[in-house]
Amino acid sequence: VKEAMTETNRQWILNRRPAGRLSIDDFAYRETEWVPRPLRPGELILRNRMFLCMPTMRNWLDAPTGALYPSVAIDSPIMALGAAEVAASEREGVPVGARVTATIHWQDYQLVHAAQPVQLIPDSVSYTDALGGIGINALTAYFGLLCVGKPKRGETLVVSAAGGSTGSIVAQIGKLKGCRVIGIAGTDAKCKWLMDQCRIDAALNYKTENVERRLSELCPRGIDVYYDNVGGAILQAAADRMAKFGRIVLCGQIASYDTDRPSDGLRNMMRLIYGSVTIHGFLVGDFMKEKNVAVEALTAWLKAGALILRQDVRFGFKQLPASFLDLFSGTNTGTLLVAADESASGKTGKLQ
Amino acid sequence: VKEAMTETNRQWILNRRPAGRLSIDDFAYRETEWVPRPLRPGELILRNRMFLCMPTMRNWLDAPTGALYPSVAIDSPIMALGAAEVAASEREGVPVGARVTATIHWQDYQLVHAAQPVQLIPDSVSYTDALGGIGINALTAYFGLLCVGKPKRGETLVVSAAGGSTGSIVAQIGKLKGCRVIGIAGTDAKCKWLMDQCRIDAALNYKTENVERRLSELCPRGIDVYYDNVGGAILQAAADRMAKFGRIVLCGQIASYDTDRPSDGLRNMMRLIYGSVTIHGFLVGDFMKEKNVAVEALTAWLKAGALILRQDVRFGFKQLPASFLDLFSGTNTGTLLVAADESASGKTGKLQ
Repeated sequence: VKEAMTETNRQWILNRRPAGRLSIDDFAYRETEWVPRPLRPGELILRNRMFLCMPTMRNWLDAPTGALYPSVAIDSPIMALGAAEVAASEREGVPVGARVTATIHWQDYQLVHAAQPVQLIPDSVSYTDALGGIGINALTAYFGLLCVGKPKRGETLVVSAAGGSTGSIVAQIGKLKGCRVIGIAGTDAKCKWLMDQCRIDAALNYKTENVERRLSELCPRGIDVYYDNVGGAILQAAADRMAKFGRIVLCGQIASYDTDRPSDGLRNMMRLIYGSVTIHGFLVGDFMKEKNVAVEALTAWLKAGALILRQDVRFGFKQLPASFLDLFSGTNTGTLLVAADESASGKTGKLQ
Repeated sequence: VKEAMTETNRQWILNRRPAGRLSIDDFAYRETEWVPRPLRPGELILRNRMFLCMPTMRNWLDAPTGALYPSVAIDSPIMALGAAEVAASEREGVPVGARVTATIHWQDYQLVHAAQPVQLIPDSVSYTDALGGIGINALTAYFGLLCVGKPKRGETLVVSAAGGSTGSIVAQIGKLKGCRVIGIAGTDAKCKWLMDQCRIDAALNYKTENVERRLSELCPRGIDVYYDNVGGAILQAAADRMAKFGRIVLCGQIASYDTDRPSDGLRNMMRLIYGSVTIHGFLVGDFMKEKNVAVEALTAWLKAGALILRQDVRFGFKQLPASFLDLFSGTNTGTLLVAADESASGKTGKLQ
């Protein structure tokens, strides 16, 4: 612990509220001293090792809007999910040296209050897998598809942001469950990867193709499950093409995060009535009682090579804001992780 | 049958497509001769006795828009649901003199093709009850609330168009199931009736009160079930106030029927995600396997006085279009029925 106390605490803070599209200047880098104080019962100090960049974090940068999301304060470090090593502990069952996932901030050191949970990472699991293959996005994909969308063998599943961390796992679980899977992504390279590696049935590039026409062609009997990560015009296009008793799984609304313009609403409710279509908002937290079942299934698929992951790991704390911005230009591929150190063989051998 | 053949067949036909709000001149009255022809196996001739006016029929008057609704052709009689007496029959189990409900048109006589179903009305049931208390709106209320919305005792239920045929039954079933029930209606008289007679917990007049503010006041812990008959701004106001795991039952969208302007879409999908809110489009036809259970329950409640109906019965075929227009100005109360004859004691003693 003493060693940690002497360290500089690097931080990326919110410099100003984003005005419309996120800019690198919305973030500011600073170095502070980590000021030690005696820990109270239940408290931890974490040394943050790896940061997961998720689109929904963009919402946390907006001014507070009621109780819907957390809101990062100006001049405070950016909130994220990540993996860390326990540097000091007054919590039973979480010893110094343990590795955990937790809500952390973009900084080297992190005080964890007694009431805040952390999740221990088993020795056999790497930081990248803890945040990736069996991390929050994978669990979101698993529960959202299987417990919310409930696809049946032979049904047509459409997934948006299918080249992304959650979407690519949804698409593959869909195939494992015997669905016809159509992925929507934003580059030809992502579409090719989805077709060649994830072996889905069709992929379409929403930036270069007519989504409405292509969905109509690819889903002649309608869409049974639409797993929505993006909202906006693609949600509308899918909603208009749902099959009788179709299910729309609302997972994310990326299209409306990085903008000041409110997205157009979902129209044509009569279509939903006549189709007996359901729309399901959900949070992965709703299903945490079943977490072990999901982790087991995901682990087995990963080991068998039935589920492949694309992890886009960037190295170096300084890369955080630029990497995060890539989520909104679509230039990342799969799960976007930023390791705190410059190389995977950094201060701790356990980074990978 | 012969007698029927000699009759004039009065019709109300679609004179032109409504342009925005419905006008009485969109309809035209004409008298035609009923031209007999020998019936083929399975065919029936109905003498139409009573017409149910439902808001959704407004959609059928628009130009065809794909497979969503039926569309009445210009110069054709208006399509409706109704009750009739069998005037001639080549269908087993449906004898001459039997009383039925069926899809009929605004005319005195109706040829029913072999493939078109009719539902026999038991002797003990009047035309008004067959179309009202145990009719399609009552079944829609029953299944939509209990099988789709699934309210639990103590939950908060909000119903729009609560003074209407479906809404008033939803509100009362909600009370029977132990919910706190808040009704939204368009006149103080309807609100008073809902409070005094239907004994719901609160009613608000959306034409004179601020729906958003009142819903916030009346539902401090959020709305568990919102039974939506209207769509538009009231749907948005309710959606923004749903409790965690709240359910929106999409039954109708009256606010968008009688207009050329597309309604604003439903915004703020993130609210639905964070609240784990579901939206359920449905049709009463989805539940017809369970029809007997619903009819039994409704009949028992009606007999016990636990469910009260407001039936707005107009007399005379000529009243059809003007009565139908009342649905959209909100001047009807409850189930709107038009009897074919000038008085309840018309040609058939069975009219009531």
